[in-house]
Amino acid sequence: MKAVEIIARKRDGISLSKSEIDFFLNSYIKGSIKDYQMSSLLMAVYLNGMSDDETVWLTEAMVDSGDKIVFPIPDDIYVDKHSTGGVGDKVSLILAPLVASCGARVPMLSGRGLGHTGGTLDKLESIPGFRTDLTLDEFRIGVEKIGCVITGQTENIAPADRLMYALRDVTATVESIPLICGSILSKKFAAGPRGLVFDVKCGNGAFMKDIESAGNLSRNLIRISKLMGRNVRALITDMNQPLGSAAGNLLEVLECIEFLRGFWQDDLYNVTMELGAEMLTLAGIESGRQQAIRLLKSKLEDGSALRKFQEMVEYQNGDFSGLFDRGKTPRARYIVDHKANQDGYLQRYSTYEVGRLVIELGGGRMTKEDLIDPAVGFKFYKKIGDEVSVGEIIAEIYARDKGLANDIDKKLYRYIEIGEDRPNIPEFIKERLG
Amino acid sequence: MKAVEIIARKRDGISLSKSEIDFFLNSYIKGSIKDYQMSSLLMAVYLNGMSDDETVWLTEAMVDSGDKIVFPIPDDIYVDKHSTGGVGDKVSLILAPLVASCGARVPMLSGRGLGHTGGTLDKLESIPGFRTDLTLDEFRIGVEKIGCVITGQTENIAPADRLMYALRDVTATVESIPLICGSILSKKFAAGPRGLVFDVKCGNGAFMKDIESAGNLSRNLIRISKLMGRNVRALITDMNQPLGSAAGNLLEVLECIEFLRGFWQDDLYNVTMELGAEMLTLAGIESGRQQAIRLLKSKLEDGSALRKFQEMVEYQNGDFSGLFDRGKTPRARYIVDHKANQDGYLQRYSTYEVGRLVIELGGGRMTKEDLIDPAVGFKFYKKIGDEVSVGEIIAEIYARDKGLANDIDKKLYRYIEIGEDRPNIPEFIKERLG
Repeated sequence: MKAVEIIARKRDGISLSKSEIDFFLNSYIKGSIKDYQMSSLLMAVYLNGMSDDETVWLTEAMVDSGDKIVFPIPDDIYVDKHSTGGVGDKVSLILAPLVASCGARVPMLSGRGLGHTGGTLDKLESIPGFRTDLTLDEFRIGVEKIGCVITGQTENIAPADRLMYALRDVTATVESIPLICGSILSKKFAAGPRGLVFDVKCGNGAFMKDIESAGNLSRNLIRISKLMGRNVRALITDMNQPLGSAAGNLLEVLECIEFLRGFWQDDLYNVTMELGAEMLTLAGIESGRQQAIRLLKSKLEDGSALRKFQEMVEYQNGDFSGLFDRGKTPRARYIVDHKANQDGYLQRYSTYEVGRLVIELGGGRMTKEDLIDPAVGFKFYKKIGDEVSVGEIIAEIYARDKGLANDIDKKLYRYIEIGEDRPNIPEFIKERLG
Repeated sequence: MKAVEIIARKRDGISLSKSEIDFFLNSYIKGSIKDYQMSSLLMAVYLNGMSDDETVWLTEAMVDSGDKIVFPIPDDIYVDKHSTGGVGDKVSLILAPLVASCGARVPMLSGRGLGHTGGTLDKLESIPGFRTDLTLDEFRIGVEKIGCVITGQTENIAPADRLMYALRDVTATVESIPLICGSILSKKFAAGPRGLVFDVKCGNGAFMKDIESAGNLSRNLIRISKLMGRNVRALITDMNQPLGSAAGNLLEVLECIEFLRGFWQDDLYNVTMELGAEMLTLAGIESGRQQAIRLLKSKLEDGSALRKFQEMVEYQNGDFSGLFDRGKTPRARYIVDHKANQDGYLQRYSTYEVGRLVIELGGGRMTKEDLIDPAVGFKFYKKIGDEVSVGEIIAEIYARDKGLANDIDKKLYRYIEIGEDRPNIPEFIKERLG
């Protein structure tokens, strides 16, 4: 089999066979197929697409390129959630312990923030001592013992994806449905969950701007996952404003703890509970959505979910009480209020730009090497549709530098719009699929 | 300007600007744009094409990526020929001195054989001592002094093409009209000719199998060249049988000398004279085809063309008389006759396969590193349409090994077909364009 002939077939719109895809991926991992050949194939895939069979084979080959975690039966209780990413999306931090406190097991491998979205690992690392570099044994044992673990992928989880993703990023081949499916599913399924719920974000702070593209991605993820024998569902959820109230690593962790103590924003609550209900039904723990939500509520109310969060943090070497100790968890030096400059209703967030401002504050990365300041970010006190009066605080800016904070304050006037008419409030859950 | 954004534009079918193409090529040469980004762009170009403007800018950027030769005025007399390659295509060796003996100047940079076609440099190197590695100064001075030089490209003639071609070869992006135009024209125009005639081979021994694809390539080469301000024409010539009588490096050189002495096969004669006539009219030496052919004939008849060939060989350090000295020019050890096994007419050559047999004999390269045996190859005594009787010699096989020669003899029965009906004889010149 020759690499160039496989590229030529995809170039000519011919479907590749399982053995061709296996050969290409294996040779690429071994180094006998080069980056420049992979990037050429990726562009051909971008432009000519892949059939479902091809996408399944690609994903399986990516899973098989590295370590795989296998949990003992009964395997339905192993469930995970994947979000396509947004601003203020701290759902994983709440959901994993909440669902685990209901009896499911959540083996969650997460990533870091890049671009305008935050990363779950970056958020968790604002907890003093928290380890996101567990070994696969520590990961597996923690899932069995605690019920949930959130850690980073090791180098050898779906290494084909790591190499391919780095290449796609610099060769304009990121936005390809089969390649996105392969990338998302290979990493998730390598970690061993049987069930998976997709939180496909949709709106001006998401990669999918409209319901059509979000629906298209969701349907593809579901179809490919089912062909791979997994139990999956998808929710398309709103990302036209930051989710919940905080954006920024430590601020989001603290918001999660508030949530687990019973204080929440409606949007974050609804999205979390609906995703949790899907996970519990996929896990076979409850048979319907209403029962599942009832169980989730009870675990919030009786404090089990918060205790599970603390257990997880401590299993991963985190200092839970240190989170509330200024000596151990640095706070931002400056907090500047962003105030309404007119009366009216909050009309619109430019959510993508708000996400970029978090990075500008130092709370995210411009390049992979950048260090993150966990303390910076935003707290938003108004959501779309809220009434505001001149001088009222819309948001707080947490910054390390006063000039920067003032600068960001000015920019926010462009990105948070106030107007006279009462706007439509976005629906939290736009669509359920699967 | 960012590489990934330029790739994305071409991927999305948007035309690139001159500054984008210049940036991409220059950055690639400097190494800040990587092979994997170039190969991704090449695949996008393959699938989405390029406008004429883009192709011109690409070609100019490729020319500008290295050394360029500039000849003094009057520049119309500097003319060259490019062949798309075939089996037994030794036209350059005759044409350069023939046209130079008529007063034109032929600055010819040639390549080596790879695939099933022979290479002009490989043929010339069967002349003892012949140098194909002239410096650009030696090249330019030789063109001015002798009237013609045939040498290899230096490393720094269109280096972008060298790098891109190597990449295209292993990423399934060879057969793209704009990329082919860029590759052919950048190398040719960097050598300084004002006029250029294309010999676009067409048939089962050519890269273009049918008249439509040959016509399409010809029209593109002509259009792009004219946009670049050059005088060009194209002939589409037959490649359904080996051109002339020999295929194999030394055998072809000896056939050229026979030609220059007045002995030739009709097909080789016609193709050479028609290409020569185009070159002389492009050079402004004759105003019409008939006068040009008359002049070419006279230079063949009075021995000027042969003398010019000898001058060129000697300028390039070649031992002309050594060619006829078995002590200096090794001959093949075995010559095996391939004889007709039935009466009838020669119907068909499988020309591509015959070209591959030359390589099998040792007369070409499987990989770039292979050494060539100059002495091996074929002499064909029958052309399509010739009558043959059982036992008559169709071809001679020149080999270094008797077993191999017998093996090739058997294979030739598949590749040279004899049948009862008188076949149509292919036209030597299929189309004239420009």
